[in-house]
Amino acid sequence: MIQNITKPTLIIDKNKCILNIERMADKARNSNVRFRPHFKTHQSAEIGNWFKEFGVKSITVSSVSMAKYFSQNGWNDITIAFPVNILEITEINELAKHSELNLLAISRETLRFLEEHLKAKTGIYIKIDTGYHRSGLLADDTKELDKLLEEIRKSKNLMFKGFLTHAGHTYNAQSKEEVKNIHEDTKQQLLDLKNRYISVFEKLEISVGDTPSCSISEDFTGIDEIRPGNFIFYDLMQYKIGSCSLADIAVVLACPVVGKNSSRNEILIYGGAIHFSEEFLQFDNGVNYYGEIIHPGDNVRSMPVENTYVSRLSQEHGIIKTTPEHFDSFNVGDIIGVLPVHSCLTANLMRENYIIIAE
Amino acid sequence: MIQNITKPTLIIDKNKCILNIERMADKARNSNVRFRPHFKTHQSAEIGNWFKEFGVKSITVSSVSMAKYFSQNGWNDITIAFPVNILEITEINELAKHSELNLLAISRETLRFLEEHLKAKTGIYIKIDTGYHRSGLLADDTKELDKLLEEIRKSKNLMFKGFLTHAGHTYNAQSKEEVKNIHEDTKQQLLDLKNRYISVFEKLEISVGDTPSCSISEDFTGIDEIRPGNFIFYDLMQYKIGSCSLADIAVVLACPVVGKNSSRNEILIYGGAIHFSEEFLQFDNGVNYYGEIIHPGDNVRSMPVENTYVSRLSQEHGIIKTTPEHFDSFNVGDIIGVLPVHSCLTANLMRENYIIIAE
Repeated sequence: MIQNITKPTLIIDKNKCILNIERMADKARNSNVRFRPHFKTHQSAEIGNWFKEFGVKSITVSSVSMAKYFSQNGWNDITIAFPVNILEITEINELAKHSELNLLAISRETLRFLEEHLKAKTGIYIKIDTGYHRSGLLADDTKELDKLLEEIRKSKNLMFKGFLTHAGHTYNAQSKEEVKNIHEDTKQQLLDLKNRYISVFEKLEISVGDTPSCSISEDFTGIDEIRPGNFIFYDLMQYKIGSCSLADIAVVLACPVVGKNSSRNEILIYGGAIHFSEEFLQFDNGVNYYGEIIHPGDNVRSMPVENTYVSRLSQEHGIIKTTPEHFDSFNVGDIIGVLPVHSCLTANLMRENYIIIAE
Repeated sequence: MIQNITKPTLIIDKNKCILNIERMADKARNSNVRFRPHFKTHQSAEIGNWFKEFGVKSITVSSVSMAKYFSQNGWNDITIAFPVNILEITEINELAKHSELNLLAISRETLRFLEEHLKAKTGIYIKIDTGYHRSGLLADDTKELDKLLEEIRKSKNLMFKGFLTHAGHTYNAQSKEEVKNIHEDTKQQLLDLKNRYISVFEKLEISVGDTPSCSISEDFTGIDEIRPGNFIFYDLMQYKIGSCSLADIAVVLACPVVGKNSSRNEILIYGGAIHFSEEFLQFDNGVNYYGEIIHPGDNVRSMPVENTYVSRLSQEHGIIKTTPEHFDSFNVGDIIGVLPVHSCLTANLMRENYIIIAE
């Protein structure tokens, strides 16, 4: 498959990444929304640079540490799309000195803390929970929203940017139709808020984020900004949801075959939970799988082998279940490719062992 | 809880670790078995040194990379308890130059490859599958075992060390009794093999590994070596199995509170799948949990808060479910402690963000 790989190594296909970026950048431009990609998926300055040729100047991250890293690597318009961790106020103030920084609030106490401790003007979004129920205020909780917005209106350091959401419940969608419905519902909730508050905050924006909505939906009317992240790599989860084709998946984890068990039709690989993560999907029969397999004899861009999947993981071991038909074509010393279930987690684990291919 | 922590940080309690090491070292000495701890749990040269005062000179690792790391840090008797990855033969030969190295084989083809490519004499174990069904030969597959041992007997570079197993099926045990039964069964299978082959290989040894068996069982008659790893930290999984008490758990993940949701009795923390791993346990009612919680007002060595647990994880977010009674005692800006489900995976993820406490 790939020469000279001796241990678990993430293969990042630059051509596919560029196509994925281009497709999303085009959609943003055609929909007249700002493209502020989430960089938590790759966490790499080198990969971040690929976005520049598509005119991307503003990015999203999910921690102060990531903001710091990308700020040091030339990005100076950064939204930290994670509820403010007030314990990192020193680093936040440091960042705000050097870049246009947007923060995310979900409570009045955090807003008051920021107003008191911020040393420079900083953008602030309010996180809206449109149904994912992880964090943020419900869109119909206008009583509490009024109070938060009043805090912001009074403050000297907080500049209100608008309402931000991550409709992560699309990750559980069973069809493209369901993703579209969630997207429409999310949009409507946010547009209602925009209408309610636009007279007070004339520049308020709406920012949405999840990769399924951004990949599948076509209608972004009224939305000002999209923040997808996963789309640069995609993965089996996104394929299952309908966000991408198998051919769009731009990362493959290359793993050495170290053993075989003919009585169980199993292939043992060096590659486990510390390489893939333990994120899994389920077949219709209820069986869990942790990845699909590119055959060692195939090109890294080939389609996965049928009825062959990662069935079990421990710290460093992975077990591939296959059929008698395919069993003999795997050999100890081969390198197989694993299409990951959730590329963000896999890429995070493989930050020190990856190669980028481009032709 | 702990001063000056601002982001997810693994707190390693040295005193507890030392007690855990001492208990296992004592048991090994009293049972007259070699103590060859598995260092994949901590992967740290500093922590590795704590074992030295208990007379530990030989260690176990699960990859060539880890062997290299510990070899560079003064360890020179190393077993790589993972089926040989023949693609790393160059690194293996390099290691064998500088240390007493033991490898693990599960097939004749690997043995033949080693005999052809090894440049120095190397110890070799055969991995026996006593019921975990991950890798290795079944103990009753004497036909195949005869062939492997004949390969080794003929070879010039491979010195047969004996039979090695990891009875990982103890991790699914529902009681201490079940762990003991698995241990007894494993022991018997290996002793039968020892008796069968001892006349040809006079020095052959039996090596067992899993933390539940090593923690719970008392009878190691006929066993030559134990290789537990997890016991230095323990975790909720081991507590549930019965390997340790809650007070023995020596790692806590400190996480900032960033939000609260009173309608759902949820506390939002900065700390997610990239900090804990996604390993989970189940309550009797079928609900999954990813960790138990030490209250921010309590000492890091306190018992967890009742009816309070990590109920959901995403990349950086963790959601703690609690009760109305406890809800008000958590505040944004607090640091809470999370007892991890599987400390090996958590420690692997937190290798760059940990502190060691000792008093």
